[in-house]
Amino acid sequence: MAPPSHCHTINGVAPPPRNGAIAVETTTTSPAAQSARLLDADEFRRLGYQVVDFIADYYAGLGDYPVHPSVTPGFLRRQLPADAPTRPEPDAFAAALRDVRDLILPGLTHWQSPRHFAHFPASSSTVGALGEALAAGINVVPFTWAASPAATELEMVVVDWLGRALHLPDRLLFSGGGGGTILGTSCEAILCALVAARDRKLAEIGARRIGDLVVYCSDQTHFAVRKAARIAGIPRENFREIPTHRHDTFALSPPALHAAMQRDADAGLVPLFLCATVGTTQTTAVDPIRDLCAVASRHGGVWVHVDAAYAGSALVCPEFRDTIAGAEDVDSVSMNAHKWLLANNDCCAMWVRSPSALVAALGTEQEYILKDAAAEGHDVVDYKDWGATLTRRFRALKVWLVLRCHGVEGLRAHVRSHVAMAAGFEAMVRADARFEVVAPRRFALVCFRLRPPLPDGEKAANELNRRLLEEVNAASAGPYMSSAMVGGVYMLRCAVGSTLTEERHVREAWNVVQERATSILLRKRG
Amino acid sequence: MAPPSHCHTINGVAPPPRNGAIAVETTTTSPAAQSARLLDADEFRRLGYQVVDFIADYYAGLGDYPVHPSVTPGFLRRQLPADAPTRPEPDAFAAALRDVRDLILPGLTHWQSPRHFAHFPASSSTVGALGEALAAGINVVPFTWAASPAATELEMVVVDWLGRALHLPDRLLFSGGGGGTILGTSCEAILCALVAARDRKLAEIGARRIGDLVVYCSDQTHFAVRKAARIAGIPRENFREIPTHRHDTFALSPPALHAAMQRDADAGLVPLFLCATVGTTQTTAVDPIRDLCAVASRHGGVWVHVDAAYAGSALVCPEFRDTIAGAEDVDSVSMNAHKWLLANNDCCAMWVRSPSALVAALGTEQEYILKDAAAEGHDVVDYKDWGATLTRRFRALKVWLVLRCHGVEGLRAHVRSHVAMAAGFEAMVRADARFEVVAPRRFALVCFRLRPPLPDGEKAANELNRRLLEEVNAASAGPYMSSAMVGGVYMLRCAVGSTLTEERHVREAWNVVQERATSILLRKRG
Repeated sequence: MAPPSHCHTINGVAPPPRNGAIAVETTTTSPAAQSARLLDADEFRRLGYQVVDFIADYYAGLGDYPVHPSVTPGFLRRQLPADAPTRPEPDAFAAALRDVRDLILPGLTHWQSPRHFAHFPASSSTVGALGEALAAGINVVPFTWAASPAATELEMVVVDWLGRALHLPDRLLFSGGGGGTILGTSCEAILCALVAARDRKLAEIGARRIGDLVVYCSDQTHFAVRKAARIAGIPRENFREIPTHRHDTFALSPPALHAAMQRDADAGLVPLFLCATVGTTQTTAVDPIRDLCAVASRHGGVWVHVDAAYAGSALVCPEFRDTIAGAEDVDSVSMNAHKWLLANNDCCAMWVRSPSALVAALGTEQEYILKDAAAEGHDVVDYKDWGATLTRRFRALKVWLVLRCHGVEGLRAHVRSHVAMAAGFEAMVRADARFEVVAPRRFALVCFRLRPPLPDGEKAANELNRRLLEEVNAASAGPYMSSAMVGGVYMLRCAVGSTLTEERHVREAWNVVQERATSILLRKRG
Repeated sequence: MAPPSHCHTINGVAPPPRNGAIAVETTTTSPAAQSARLLDADEFRRLGYQVVDFIADYYAGLGDYPVHPSVTPGFLRRQLPADAPTRPEPDAFAAALRDVRDLILPGLTHWQSPRHFAHFPASSSTVGALGEALAAGINVVPFTWAASPAATELEMVVVDWLGRALHLPDRLLFSGGGGGTILGTSCEAILCALVAARDRKLAEIGARRIGDLVVYCSDQTHFAVRKAARIAGIPRENFREIPTHRHDTFALSPPALHAAMQRDADAGLVPLFLCATVGTTQTTAVDPIRDLCAVASRHGGVWVHVDAAYAGSALVCPEFRDTIAGAEDVDSVSMNAHKWLLANNDCCAMWVRSPSALVAALGTEQEYILKDAAAEGHDVVDYKDWGATLTRRFRALKVWLVLRCHGVEGLRAHVRSHVAMAAGFEAMVRADARFEVVAPRRFALVCFRLRPPLPDGEKAANELNRRLLEEVNAASAGPYMSSAMVGGVYMLRCAVGSTLTEERHVREAWNVVQERATSILLRKRG
């Protein structure tokens, strides 16, 4: 084994625009003194202030970083030693913070940049970040009620608060006989719902028929569902992605779903699980929940899950309530509060109508017993039986802090400001005849492109728009957007949702798009 | 819907011993001003200092809280309003912090208390907590390399650093053609390994044979493995928990494993996956890796995973290296750095010999293609294909900070200090003829009990020790321990590992045990 290197040199990384703005205090604490003070209150205070200052400085200068770094694979690995230090260097914490500033920050994609319009936002706030910090400081492990009673009960309270704030049907909340939990990600939520559905169905038809179960979604559904189905042992050939169409706003068609389920049933297979999406990843399409539930109910016992990872946050506004109409009949819903509701990564709330099905599949009980905590008069739960993991973090704390400190009206104002900015962007796109909006804007995502140069020029249009995105993202002080390919159409995605984004950033982003388009079209003609 | 309550009253919760020691600053920021400053640098600094002070005060007074609160189910839910506030109350953040202090902290189990000897520790440190805070502040989503290059590369560096520090075989590291990742929990790590093993095997024998696959472990293995097997669709009747015995230190017996695999193979079933444990949950037993791998290799293609959730941290000390002897032949290893290595919850490192098997099972690739990043000359990975979730947190940052700021020697000193304290506790148990140490102490857990009152008094001994634990834990300023029931023997578990624990806490804990034992034995006689 190579001798460990004790110091970390920094070579060849361009400093960020204003990295001098992030100050890192240097002191002369000896390594021995450091290791004697692993959890000392004064040491925590001293280093904690440094971290708070570091983050505050980062926020102050965030708009000046290129959103996406121009680095090549291996840029960081090449600069770090092969081994951890044997002993810490003097004042190692300050040295490490300097490396974060000079070495790591310049190599990150800055999800919180006001010019980050790619993917969906990583929604953040002072309160969300500090809620995470507080939970990390308190560091409890609420896997059962007894393992940290207040953490479990706060989670129960907060999921009901959030569910009501999002206008979810009462039967999904503890107050209505259902219940919720806060997991890390939608992947986990969908996996848990699917496993609960699977075991409920197999208890009915026999465990050996796992190979006959079929999972349904649309071709717009997030890969998370396919991943969950694979993990749960659903055969890959039993995964149905029903095609959607542009004329139908890329929503899942109930008749097409019915036909697929009928075909499978006729072939001796067993329709198991439907994942409907409110706000698809590519274009924020909304699947028609009520009609899909009606189809599912015709194929007895199909579990309907609603993935509202992104748009779930918008449900806090009554004007978006219609997008989840019919949710009284679904079995489970999940949404990522870390996407648009000021709760920093990670934070996925999930609600289920029948907690007993979750617990039967994931709990320590070995038998399939229908047993609702509420039905038994318990008023607490052991959350280890509600998720894929036993160890869990105290995520409820940050959600509670966000709701306390901003209130439901504050969250509405937050969502509405982004929707308004996206509407502004959409209006600018529509005002330029060279462009078109490709999918209806429902929330704060605008899908647009340069129109095809010729009526049958779809392929050329895709090429053109691909180049446009490349050039837009190459402008180092410009916006960072992503793309989608839906129904054969390549489009640019401008997702407004970063907490720091203001109208001027949206206007500037559009200016860059226009300029780049003009330049590309000129070159094309020339 | 009931009108939301705007303020949160606190009734009927006894204040913690020194809650006055946690100061919460009150200011007069208006709600409107708050919502306009969701991610403002100055506001972050102001509130961030409050949180740092709050946590520092909490650490200073932590020893004074009862480790486990005496609360009854519903105590917190009853005190909180049914709905989130519509608008924040004045200075909501300070009000919420006060509620954390007065309402939530008194209802938590304090995992970081120096008198927490239950379960396994939730290892924490200033650097670990601040690493979490920093990651939450930076708030990136490193699901692919491109989505945050530096975060991905730091993770690759750090898992190799950690793996080498823990004396893992090179073939499990990136440097040796394998590779690692940092997930949240062992549950996720084991699930991912199992799914990779399953899909590799099914690619060989046909997807329809999922019902023939068998998973093996011992009756001491953590429930995480059963949970993972269920999630992965392994039939419940194909889960083998091989019995262990006290005379064999509760380790998994290779001949017994071989017999079980042979029986299954003879019955037409397919041995798939073995989870061996280094440091079992109940008694820290160590399964003999080398001999178990030899058995597994006789049943071609059985994936061997080593769950070193707790004891993995001890591998940082060369003197514990023998506990993982033979690991060159395993397929994967996981350990929780949040259990004993100063990385706050959650933090599970996993290493695999064949990343391509993971990616084939969990990645966006739809075909089973053997494709190693290294083999293709790539020097980066897309970590979304290495775990059960797509969204992930920047956990590598805290692990890197811990390694930087403490060095490998610092971590060794940390582990050794707990091992020494546990050895001290063990010596005290052995010096009292009324007690016995029930399972060999290998790391920092001591399993002990009052000896049976009569030679055949096992049942009475269990009753006696159950009462002993109850009374030990009832002492409000006393230690908090947990129990195990292994081979029909009920025992108390004293797990030394809280960062704040000092020798005096261990001595005091033993004094309480002795006193309670004396009192119980007296009453029994009386």
